[in-house]
Amino acid sequence: MIDCDVHPQIGDVEGFLAYVEPAQREWFRRQGPTLGLPGYPWSHPISWFRQDVEGDAGPPGAVVEDVRRDVLEATSADLGILNADDAIAVSLMPSPYRAAALARAHNDWLREQWLDREPRLRGAIVCPAQDPRAAADEIRRVAADARFVQVLLCGGSERPYGDPRYLPIFEAAVECELPVAIHSGGEGMGIAAQPGGAGPPTFYVEWHTLGSACSTMAHLVSLLCHGTFDRLPGLRVMLLEGGVAWLPGILWRLDTNWRGLRAEVPWLERKPSEAAREHVRLTTQPLEHTDGRDDLLFELLEAVGAPDILCFASDYPHWDFDDPAFVLRRLPESWRQQVLHANAAAFYGDRLGG
Amino acid sequence: MIDCDVHPQIGDVEGFLAYVEPAQREWFRRQGPTLGLPGYPWSHPISWFRQDVEGDAGPPGAVVEDVRRDVLEATSADLGILNADDAIAVSLMPSPYRAAALARAHNDWLREQWLDREPRLRGAIVCPAQDPRAAADEIRRVAADARFVQVLLCGGSERPYGDPRYLPIFEAAVECELPVAIHSGGEGMGIAAQPGGAGPPTFYVEWHTLGSACSTMAHLVSLLCHGTFDRLPGLRVMLLEGGVAWLPGILWRLDTNWRGLRAEVPWLERKPSEAAREHVRLTTQPLEHTDGRDDLLFELLEAVGAPDILCFASDYPHWDFDDPAFVLRRLPESWRQQVLHANAAAFYGDRLGG
Repeated sequence: MIDCDVHPQIGDVEGFLAYVEPAQREWFRRQGPTLGLPGYPWSHPISWFRQDVEGDAGPPGAVVEDVRRDVLEATSADLGILNADDAIAVSLMPSPYRAAALARAHNDWLREQWLDREPRLRGAIVCPAQDPRAAADEIRRVAADARFVQVLLCGGSERPYGDPRYLPIFEAAVECELPVAIHSGGEGMGIAAQPGGAGPPTFYVEWHTLGSACSTMAHLVSLLCHGTFDRLPGLRVMLLEGGVAWLPGILWRLDTNWRGLRAEVPWLERKPSEAAREHVRLTTQPLEHTDGRDDLLFELLEAVGAPDILCFASDYPHWDFDDPAFVLRRLPESWRQQVLHANAAAFYGDRLGG
Repeated sequence: MIDCDVHPQIGDVEGFLAYVEPAQREWFRRQGPTLGLPGYPWSHPISWFRQDVEGDAGPPGAVVEDVRRDVLEATSADLGILNADDAIAVSLMPSPYRAAALARAHNDWLREQWLDREPRLRGAIVCPAQDPRAAADEIRRVAADARFVQVLLCGGSERPYGDPRYLPIFEAAVECELPVAIHSGGEGMGIAAQPGGAGPPTFYVEWHTLGSACSTMAHLVSLLCHGTFDRLPGLRVMLLEGGVAWLPGILWRLDTNWRGLRAEVPWLERKPSEAAREHVRLTTQPLEHTDGRDDLLFELLEAVGAPDILCFASDYPHWDFDDPAFVLRRLPESWRQQVLHANAAAFYGDRLGG
């Protein structure tokens, strides 16, 4: 089993700061435990973290021992992919220079404190997306280490990622034979646009229902409309934690609109859903609960090729962590091996090893 | 058959300006045909209007004769509800004073130029939502005419409509026994938030796929989370032109999150989807095309009570107008009478008459 979304926490701030270049280090230190990363205007009503496990040093997931025990051993994952947690929001910092410094530190910290210490873990490259050329440089620098299996972008952004300003990032990923993962979250933070299309929501529950899903949909539709997968045929995209039940409806809408409005996007020579099916994968967590109608959800997802495109993720150590045993019971039997292992193995390819 | 969404066009700008109070009239005249209403940053690649019909005076839908011929006669609608087109965006004007003046003019113009001339038409009350107290005043003024069957709000807004600042609007509607319709569109216009959760989209096709749907979802989730239907048990809401395929997925997500996060919204004593089913209706157009899987779409919608909550709308005279004969063929036979007539008749009640 491959867990496609595990979030290492920066528990030891001083230990992390040692990876920040000296000229910038003091500024980050002065910001306290948030390291100056932008935050949400709301807060979780209880806790961002699982309440049923404890970390060895701070919140669960702050040291490699936690991940070894709670993910690799407790859930029998063969491999876990480490996606930055708060640090994914470097690209929402007003200063692209500080963002670049923090991204470099995070990538180096991940390599030494996590990948060097546990061979079953893989890494995602954090980059300052608000400065696409600097982001591309960082991707090329870090990709030399084959244990990094993807580039990681934040759901929150200034514009949807199909915008050509972001091409240097996608080009660098393709050149390095890395997929790009877009992880929901960060909407309304720092320089990011607001979630949801009707201005700032009030509650965490509102953002978690909709805001996080909408940025994922927006990036998918944008990449498809701009023809990014035609410009870069080697590009592969993983959508993390944006939910999945909306996928058929959005692809149906987009295919219909492409038929009626293709004068606006003349470079799209086939139905957008075909490009999605070829180039895009999605992770399971949070797999929508269906009030007893899982049959419908899976039939719907099957219509857009889900058995080949869904990949398991636990979202450890967050409060809404999905245990693979639980997801396994919900999945149609014929999907299980693919969703829990084969789809991710095929998508990530050689770098995954293991 | 009841057509819940017909858009009268302001073809004769001078004729319309006669309804604007004299002190404001000259300013609106100087803005030219847009009347100073905010516009989209993109434009339709072909035309906003149906290309298969012609208007008697300007675009189709600019005079009552067009609606009589193209809607009431051509589609055998017994009744048509007139929802403002561009003028719905008064609430996105920077000046709430100009917005109030334009809303008053539109409501009076609609009464004299449309409702007085065709007994099978009903009206929606436009109001300046950026100044909720002024909006409530306008609702009370216009509601005295029983041919106005709803209050009309714009999908684009500064914040989602559950925010308490908007309560005076919903209170006035309930006091006047009127439902509130929220029509997608206007996202990213004037003072409205951007559509979609990841910043401004690039293309009309992108906005039409996602941006317009996301504001509808955002308002629905916001109204449910704020408990607006518990505060105002008489409140009924009609969601216009936001699509429908996303509804089960969003309600599933919200119910699940309510279970896990209700500490944040302790006033919600039952599953949010139950309040939605009781108080909310949606119109059909644009009913998602499904790549041959209408069976799945309707089974999915049935799971959230769609046979009782979907109401037919044509969206005349827009380019993506739905002919009722076409929708009728797609709908399950047992839904047809309800969706084409009975649901809207029950929802609008006595004011609809006819």
